Amino acid sequence: MRQGIIGIVGGMGPEAGLSLSGKITGSTIAASDQDHLPQILYSLPEMIPDRTEYITGNIKTNPAGGILQILKGMEQSGVTIAALACNSAHAPEIFDVVVSGLRQRKSKIRLLHMVDEVGDFISRHYSVGARVGVLGTTGTYRTRLYDRLQKYGLTTVNISGQEQHQMHQAIYHPHFGVKSSAGIIPERAVSIMENAANSLIKSGAELIVMGCTELALIYSDRQFQGLPVIDSSEVLARALINAHSPGKLKPWIE
Amino acid sequence: MRQGIIGIVGGMGPEAGLSLSGKITGSTIAASDQDHLPQILYSLPEMIPDRTEYITGNIKTNPAGGILQILKGMEQSGVTIAALACNSAHAPEIFDVVVSGLRQRKSKIRLLHMVDEVGDFISRHYSVGARVGVLGTTGTYRTRLYDRLQKYGLTTVNISGQEQHQMHQAIYHPHFGVKSSAGIIPERAVSIMENAANSLIKSGAELIVMGCTELALIYSDRQFQGLPVIDSSEVLARALINAHSPGKLKPWIE
Repeated sequence: MRQGIIGIVGGMGPEAGLSLSGKITGSTIAASDQDHLPQILYSLPEMIPDRTEYITGNIKTNPAGGILQILKGMEQSGVTIAALACNSAHAPEIFDVVVSGLRQRKSKIRLLHMVDEVGDFISRHYSVGARVGVLGTTGTYRTRLYDRLQKYGLTTVNISGQEQHQMHQAIYHPHFGVKSSAGIIPERAVSIMENAANSLIKSGAELIVMGCTELALIYSDRQFQGLPVIDSSEVLARALINAHSPGKLKPWIE
Repeated sequence: MRQGIIGIVGGMGPEAGLSLSGKITGSTIAASDQDHLPQILYSLPEMIPDRTEYITGNIKTNPAGGILQILKGMEQSGVTIAALACNSAHAPEIFDVVVSGLRQRKSKIRLLHMVDEVGDFISRHYSVGARVGVLGTTGTYRTRLYDRLQKYGLTTVNISGQEQHQMHQAIYHPHFGVKSSAGIIPERAVSIMENAANSLIKSGAELIVMGCTELALIYSDRQFQGLPVIDSSEVLARALINAHSPGKLKPWIE
């Protein structure tokens, strides 16, 4: 393996990891099985506590520990480029601990940052200065994770605290949340997502970022009310292909 | 990890590996991310030559070598129960070489056999003595892989050589085959599958086995013309859950 293996830290939840891996396959130019890129997906959910629960102070164990242990195992298996299939895991209190842990053990893994990839993608495909509406978990919301887009000349638009409470339920609720839906998306989750997106548009959003891998399971269209919808996990999948074998990246079709 | 990790040898093709992994998630009783079973999916397609091409003599390298190397890496990562996400890889000329390689290196991995799991499943859920129509790749067809179902008191029904040629194309053809379709299933592949299934019914089949993980991507219903359709990869997913944590297996709904 000249360029090594692509490693995906999944299990946050399992569907999000599978979805990221599938998007790599879907955006790779390949005429046969053997043309596809080498990937290893670790889905060890028991090892990684809930990211939002940690960010909001409900649990004390930093998910960074489990993530680091998984990355260590991956590196031993030949992984050279890796990504975390969870937006909330990119909050500085988690992601920065992972990065400093990798540095400490002199890891050679190149770990991509989902939000940086989204920023780079939007500024290349859409206009700099755009107002980006962001949807995601309460962990992503509270840490204002997507404010990082400012580095790319973009401003962010957010929903209200009350709307965010609903949004989080659409992901996590044991009855109508997408995490417990096993493939069939509950209507209520869809309508919460649509209400939140409409609210972002009213607040001036010019495009919408699905800042949670599981939101892309609720709504997979590339447009909402005529505005572009950016799936952060698809952008990350494309960035992984580009980092590994740029010649195999399918052209972007809006 | 008391029971260790479930390992999936994917990449044959990548979609089949993802599909098997997703079926494990879908059939697991879980209220949160953390309740899901630990899984590692290796999708290293470059390491595993095409199974049917080997079986039919078009290539000389036995895919067993790459599969064994992957299982070795998995075992080092904590995998205790494993499966191959490809029916054709269960042909004796491949699978038996894998098993004897594992024995040679005193591996403790428990490698399930997809066809045995299908046999066990059908004889428990349907009637012993049933006539089972089998669809799959030409590799699976030529090696009469599913004749192994006789061990479970079942007889098999197969399509003609000409129909099999078409069937294989529905999986492998660079334009209308499911392997190069990246998620959108071509109509032609669907109609080939339906014609083949109708032909099995005319020959007396009482139920139909999708004996290729990718066929379940073409046709995911549980019935065809009123007869039960058994997805071999779903059966394998359920067997993996059962081998790891039987209490977490969702009940079977026909």
